Parts: sequence; structure tokens; C-alpha cells
Amino acid sequence: METNTKRRVLSGMRPTGRLHLGNYMGALYNWVRLQREYSCYFFIADIHALTTDYADPGDIRSKSFEVALDFLGAGLDPEQCVIFRQSAVPAHSELYTLFGMITPLGWLERVPTYKDQQEQLREKELNTHGFLGYPLLQSADILLYKPDFVPVGQDQVSHVELTREVARRFNQLYSSAVTPEVAAAASDKERMKAEISENVIETELLPEPKVLLTPSPKLPGLDGRKMSKSYGNTIGLTDSAEELKKKLRPMVTDPARVRRTDPGDPDKCPVGDLHKVFSTPETLAKVYDGCRNATIGCIECKGWCADSILREIEPIAERRRGFEAQPALVQDILTTGAAKAREQADATMAEVRAAMGL
Amino acid sequence: METNTKRRVLSGMRPTGRLHLGNYMGALYNWVRLQREYSCYFFIADIHALTTDYADPGDIRSKSFEVALDFLGAGLDPEQCVIFRQSAVPAHSELYTLFGMITPLGWLERVPTYKDQQEQLREKELNTHGFLGYPLLQSADILLYKPDFVPVGQDQVSHVELTREVARRFNQLYSSAVTPEVAAAASDKERMKAEISENVIETELLPEPKVLLTPSPKLPGLDGRKMSKSYGNTIGLTDSAEELKKKLRPMVTDPARVRRTDPGDPDKCPVGDLHKVFSTPETLAKVYDGCRNATIGCIECKGWCADSILREIEPIAERRRGFEAQPALVQDILTTGAAKAREQADATMAEVRAAMGL
Ligand code: SF4
Ligand code: SF4
Repeated sequence: METNTKRRVLSGMRPTGRLHLGNYMGALYNWVRLQREYSCYFFIADIHALTTDYADPGDIRSKSFEVALDFLGAGLDPEQCVIFRQSAVPAHSELYTLFGMITPLGWLERVPTYKDQQEQLREKELNTHGFLGYPLLQSADILLYKPDFVPVGQDQVSHVELTREVARRFNQLYSSAVTPEVAAAASDKERMKAEISENVIETELLPEPKVLLTPSPKLPGLDGRKMSKSYGNTIGLTDSAEELKKKLRPMVTDPARVRRTDPGDPDKCPVGDLHKVFSTPETLAKVYDGCRNATIGCIECKGWCADSILREIEPIAERRRGFEAQPALVQDILTTGAAKAREQADATMAEVRAAMGL
Repeated sequence: METNTKRRVLSGMRPTGRLHLGNYMGALYNWVRLQREYSCYFFIADIHALTTDYADPGDIRSKSFEVALDFLGAGLDPEQCVIFRQSAVPAHSELYTLFGMITPLGWLERVPTYKDQQEQLREKELNTHGFLGYPLLQSADILLYKPDFVPVGQDQVSHVELTREVARRFNQLYSSAVTPEVAAAASDKERMKAEISENVIETELLPEPKVLLTPSPKLPGLDGRKMSKSYGNTIGLTDSAEELKKKLRPMVTDPARVRRTDPGDPDKCPVGDLHKVFSTPETLAKVYDGCRNATIGCIECKGWCADSILREIEPIAERRRGFEAQPALVQDILTTGAAKAREQADATMAEVRAAMGL
């Protein structure tokens, strides 16, 4: 008999507005590849958006819709994976509430991003109960679906670590008291006997998920710094050929190439870094050779770069436009996804409630 | 046209096990009277039970069922009020999660019961995210149903005060940004104009509920101290005549009455205090007269006291037995109640989500 139980993966993304190329390469690019191999749940973390932006949330709902378009444009296939909005599945809040009961404040205060972000976003008054609980909401997001893996970048590893700690504590507190007989056993031996006679299979209620470290190339922005919305140096995931070429034209290059005849080094040039991510080995060879021997100009090189990027993003923009023209279909995909997610989440909640005596 | 809009009341009770007479007089006794005048929601706070007892929750579900029997036995009428279990309405956790985003940690740390209870229950490790958030979960419990009044004893007033603060903050943050035009108005005058042209009716999204201070007579226990489960000095709400008489026999009395011929004072006697709550004016007159003039003995007096208490609790025990014999009916009452509660709670959540941009 062949078993077809794919391992499960879960990840989410905040609806922060239109994606740029860095967002895409750091997450969606990997997700599209994961959906073939794993049973995947991908959600739009709209409640999380409120942890930092509660005072001025804007229209999270329409931003979430844009993210759904980005998901579908990038190639997430609703036949292959489950796509949904977090707020459409109440179990996220329910499990978060229950996890709160067993989670010491100290665990949350120690999460490295807590103090960091509070410092960075000092003007936002993030000394709230919800901001402190943010990694716990993530733990609930994750454990509801009992995934084997959580694909994250290096900077998110500490959140998965907390999730594993919470799962462990939950399992310690509630997995063992399976039956009154087992719970009442006076010794390990008696307990084992009770378990056998009660036909208890020792399983962990909430398996600890593993980190799946995904490659997230550091994409340079137009000014050479890390590509980031807050620097205003981004290439949009759906930029047109014209927009892209216009943006690349003034992009910084290797400062050694002052004149066309000065040789340069793609390893010291942000344009070279983009080539390394998006260009074929052939193009890359031409870039190294032409730049180092000054046989090409930066304008020519940037043209090739634009072509390489466009080869990646043009199909995305096209698919996205297709979905954009059918908002009812997208809404339907989200509704169907939420129903599938709720099914799994409610099953977990039933187990969790029973384990906690509710 | 006659309008039949009763004002709304909400209250809840933790499933801590069988009720005693003190619990009953402090809450249920009042609720039964309130249901006639108000549109009432009464819930069994099973999630709250976990804030303090997460490490050893026991069977909260069956305790909740016992509380439902107490509710019905005491005379709550499912035709007149809505009775439900908190955990059957996910919106409680959803609103709690969203309230967390806007609630400063300091507000919660300042709630007087926070430090008090942590001190009192030091062995329970209550430095958890959920225990800190407990009054916020109460705020969600309350505001979901937009009650006009919350019936509480004096010791719970600070929790309703926090609820009012949370409602005010929510309204300040989200009630005003009704339309982009209104939100963008540069002056009060412009704003008013925009509101009129947009046909905005200025209503507060979450009205601040008022405290309904309910009488809760300090009932003495068998040893003269306050009746409390932790003192083991309670009279059960469903004690039989025999049990009651057996419990009263050794109950402490006015220490001045050493011999049958010594006069006493019902105002200095816990049995006298019970008479004041449960006996008719006629009986009470006989007690004062007979005690002060030493024309009655304490045993006789306690007999009358037992009769007075039994007049109150015997119909309760009988009604309770009736429901106990029909567990499916009770389950049905809870299911129907939860459906009614969900209807109101989901309507509030739809407004809350929209206001927060979700
Ligand atoms: S030729 Fe290309 S890689 Fe070399 S400096 Fe110019 S833009 Fe950068
Ligand atoms: S006669 Fe009644 S009121 Fe007076 S001391 Fe005895 S028990 Fe108390």
C-alpha cells in the first residue's frame, strides 16, 4: 500500500502593501517551490498587522486582498496549497488565548525581537498586551496546523524556538492526563499498566515543528543598501519593463568605474548582486568578463539585468493581472481556503480543549 | 407604537464546583430577579477557570455542567435569558486578542486584583500572559454583548472600570474614522460637514457599560467567619434538610449565651445574621425577643433558621434535580444559548473588525 502523506508546512505574511522583489525572494519564491513537495498552509497575517499598526491600521482588508493577488501571481496554486486570511479562522485567537494561560511573561519578554522592535518603533507605543503576546499568536498560528516544518529566514528562528517551548510546555501539562486512571497512577509502573489497559497511545498533542531554513538572498536596493520599503529603494514585484529600466538607470554601481574605460568588479557592484540572483550563468559570465575588462558599459549591463529580472517577474505580473480581473474568484479562493484551514484548526482546538478539561 | 427594547445585562460565573449559599446570594439570587426586567446574558466562564488553574484544571466541562444545573435550579429561565458557556463562543477570544493590541501593559498591571491574587496564590505561578490579561478577557466578555449594565459586587467594580477604559480607547481610536472624508477633515467644522454629508450618525461603537451594584449580604459561615469554600464553613445550595440541621447544630452563637438562661443578642450571633437574610419579619421578631429575654434556646432558634433557609433552597434543589434527570435538555439549553450568544457576539465582531480595518 502506498501512503501519500506529505509532510506539512505552514507560513504566513503580513499584509504590508505591495510586495517588492526582496519580499518575494525571501518568502514567496520559496513557498511556490515548497507547495509541490509539502502539504502547505499559507496565510495572510492580518491580525498581526494590528500588533504594530493598531493606531493607524488603514484598510487591512484591501491590503490583504492585494497580498492574495501577490500569492496567486507568484504561482501559489490553490489546488496545491491552502491560502487564507488569519482573521477568517477564529481558532487562531482561541488558541492564543489558551496558550496565554500557560506562558510566563518572562518567556515573551526574552524574545529578542521584543525589545528591538519596541526600540525601533518607539513612536508607536508598543508597550501593549498584544505586542508582548505577538510571538505567542505566532505560536498559535503555527501549532493549530501541526506542521512538520516552518520555513523561515534566520531572523525568525527565535520565534519558532518559542513555539517549540510552548508546545513542549503544553504537552507536559496536558498530554499525560489522558484518563483518570492514568492520572491517578501512583508509580511509573502502575502508570504504564494503566496506560496499556486504557489503550493509551503516547502521542504528543502538539508536535514541535522544525525550522526549515529557507534561502533568502540579501537583495540590494537601488542605492546599494538592503532593499527595504523604509529606504524607498525598492524594485516592485509588478513593476513594468519601463518602470524597471527607469529605476535601474541611476542605480549605483562599482565606484571604480568612473569612466567607461575603467574596469570594474561585479562583486563590488549592487547591479552585479542582482545579476547573481536573477541572471543565467551565461549572462553572468558575460557580465564578469565585460565589467572586469571594460568591454561593456554599465548601461548595457543594467539592460541585461533588467531583462533577467523581467524574466522572473513578468509572468508574475501577468498572472496577477489575470486574477485581478476576477475578484470574485480570488474571494472564492480565500473563502475555500479559510474553510479548509478551519477544518484543520477546529480539529486541533477540539483536542486542545479536551486536553485542558474544557 | 410601543417599543419593547429592554435594557441589557451581562454577567458570568466561574465553574468552581458546587455553589454554596454565599455564592448564591451574591450572584444568582440577583440574576433571577434581573431576568424579568432586563434582556440578560449569563455565561459560565470556563476559559477564566484556566487563568488560575491551568496547571491542574480538572474536568472544567463537567463542572460547567454543574453550574448550568445551579443556574437552572436557582430559577434562571432559558425562555427569559441567554445561558451559555464562554468557550462555546469563539468571539470572546477574538475580541480579547484584538483588545490586546490597544491595551497598555500598565493598565493591566494596575488592576488591584492583579498583584493581590498573585500574592495570595503564590504557589500557582501566575506570572503568565493570560493571568495578566484576565481583566481584558472580562472586558471582551462584556463588550461583545454591549450591555447597559454589569451587575457586580463592590470588589469587582475595578474590572468594570477597566472595561469602560478599554471601550473608550477603542471608540477614540476607531469610531471616528468612519469615512475617508470624515477622517481627512481638517477642522471640527469641516468634520461635522463631512459627517452630515456622509450621513454619519455619531454612535459609539462599544458603549461603556454601567455598574449595577447588586446587594451581596455578607453571609457568615458555620464558624462565624465569612462563608467561603476555602474555610470549609459553607452551607451548600443543595444541602438536604438533614444535612443543613446537622451543620447548624454546632454552629457558633453569641458567646454571651453560655447557659440557656443567659440572654443573648442576635446582632452578635452568626445565626442571627442568617435569620436577617432568610427569615420573615415575624420570625425575626421572635428571634430578637426570645434571644434577648432568654425565652428560647439556641437549638430552637437554629431550627427556625434551618426552616427559613430551607424555604429558600428546597425549591432550588427540587428544580435542580428535575434538570439533572434530563441532561439532554440541559445540553440543549446550553447549545441554544450559545447560538443566541454567538449571533450577538458575531454581530459585534463584524463591526469591530470593520472598524479596525480587517
Ligand atoms: S558593468 Fe555592471 S557589474 Fe560592472 S560596475 Fe557596471 S553595472 Fe556594475
Ligand atoms: S438564640 Fe438564636 S440568635 Fe440568640 S444566640 Fe442563640 S442562636 Fe444566636
